Amino acid sequence: MYRIGLIRVFSTDDVELLNRHGRLLEKFIARPDLQVISRCIEGHPQGLWNQEEIRKAIPKIVRLGQEMERRDGVAALLVSCAADPGVPELREAVRVPVIGAGSASAAVALSLGRPVGALGITDWILPPISEVLGSRLVGWEVPEGVKTTVDLMSEQGQERFVEAGERLKGRGAGVILLACTGFSTVEAAPLLEERLGLPVIDPLLSAGMIAYYAARGNA
Amino acid sequence: MYRIGLIRVFSTDDVELLNRHGRLLEKFIARPDLQVISRCIEGHPQGLWNQEEIRKAIPKIVRLGQEMERRDGVAALLVSCAADPGVPELREAVRVPVIGAGSASAAVALSLGRPVGALGITDWILPPISEVLGSRLVGWEVPEGVKTTVDLMSEQGQERFVEAGERLKGRGAGVILLACTGFSTVEAAPLLEERLGLPVIDPLLSAGMIAYYAARGNA
Repeated sequence: MYRIGLIRVFSTDDVELLNRHGRLLEKFIARPDLQVISRCIEGHPQGLWNQEEIRKAIPKIVRLGQEMERRDGVAALLVSCAADPGVPELREAVRVPVIGAGSASAAVALSLGRPVGALGITDWILPPISEVLGSRLVGWEVPEGVKTTVDLMSEQGQERFVEAGERLKGRGAGVILLACTGFSTVEAAPLLEERLGLPVIDPLLSAGMIAYYAARGNA
Repeated sequence: MYRIGLIRVFSTDDVELLNRHGRLLEKFIARPDLQVISRCIEGHPQGLWNQEEIRKAIPKIVRLGQEMERRDGVAALLVSCAADPGVPELREAVRVPVIGAGSASAAVALSLGRPVGALGITDWILPPISEVLGSRLVGWEVPEGVKTTVDLMSEQGQERFVEAGERLKGRGAGVILLACTGFSTVEAAPLLEERLGLPVIDPLLSAGMIAYYAARGNA
């Protein structure tokens, strides 16, 4: 059994919501040897939607990751946020591999060898993504009216994703990177793939695939 | 069914050897919806072990990839060589995503966020790997006495891999990237993981995982 510790940076008491990323990842990988254990940090009910929220969350992420390594017997940790909050710090604090959804999904997008257009929710480009992609990142768009991960859950959000994706396609993107795991929560990727006719990299599923590889090795 | 076209750059009439990478990848992904079709270029019985061999192989790789897109109904192409020979050219010639074992496995190694040590068979650093890793690449080692992918298949090769891996560990590597898919053929990764106590990125399996994702999408 390969166990991944998944850190949510969206605080919730709702067990179904807490486990949603883990269940989506288990369903996607579809292997009986994968188990995902999800835990969340406290005090961030709207997720990490600005720099101040991210700064405050870092020490909580490090403590939670250390606790999961010690108590849950995880073989890899996945920070399920495209900003990779606390990822460098957590890597210094634990022995198991730590995968950040932002840098890992950007690495998967890079592997396709096409110009990458990113769809985010922040009006700044997330550093772990621009560091991996460099000049391969040809655009960064935010769906209209979206400020927090909670806004992605509304019905009207969906059409706004597609519009923003079309803008990226217009700027020459050959692959779309979803630069917020809130898009994973609402399963935006299949809709966007169909409507845009381009490969879409989901940050939870692509980074989770790498976390699964890190946990399992080559056995 | 998601079909990957796997291009071997090691010429052979031996069907078992031709299909070896494809079978290893199918076994690793272990999903009934994955099918790998393998074909090889002609005229390179020792693989692509120097720049001249690579140069001559490029147009053959492009033609073979085009043919596989047309005839085999593949949803993604995987060039199973860490030098990514013909990968940029093939991307211009087909519509499906093209994954190179070198750049894609380097991207997976990068995602672990640790200094990367690469184990290759060439005495020069492969550009698709150094381009992805930049300053994260802390060492490049070749096992003693190895010049071609065929040399990897000998019994005594194995101890030489481990020695070269130890040298990389001594230079601060926190993850080992196998920079030749000949290591995949002989399944060197599990032995190295065990002996070195570090994560080892297999170029066929890690790049194949991304090719599978590219073929499948987020369904």
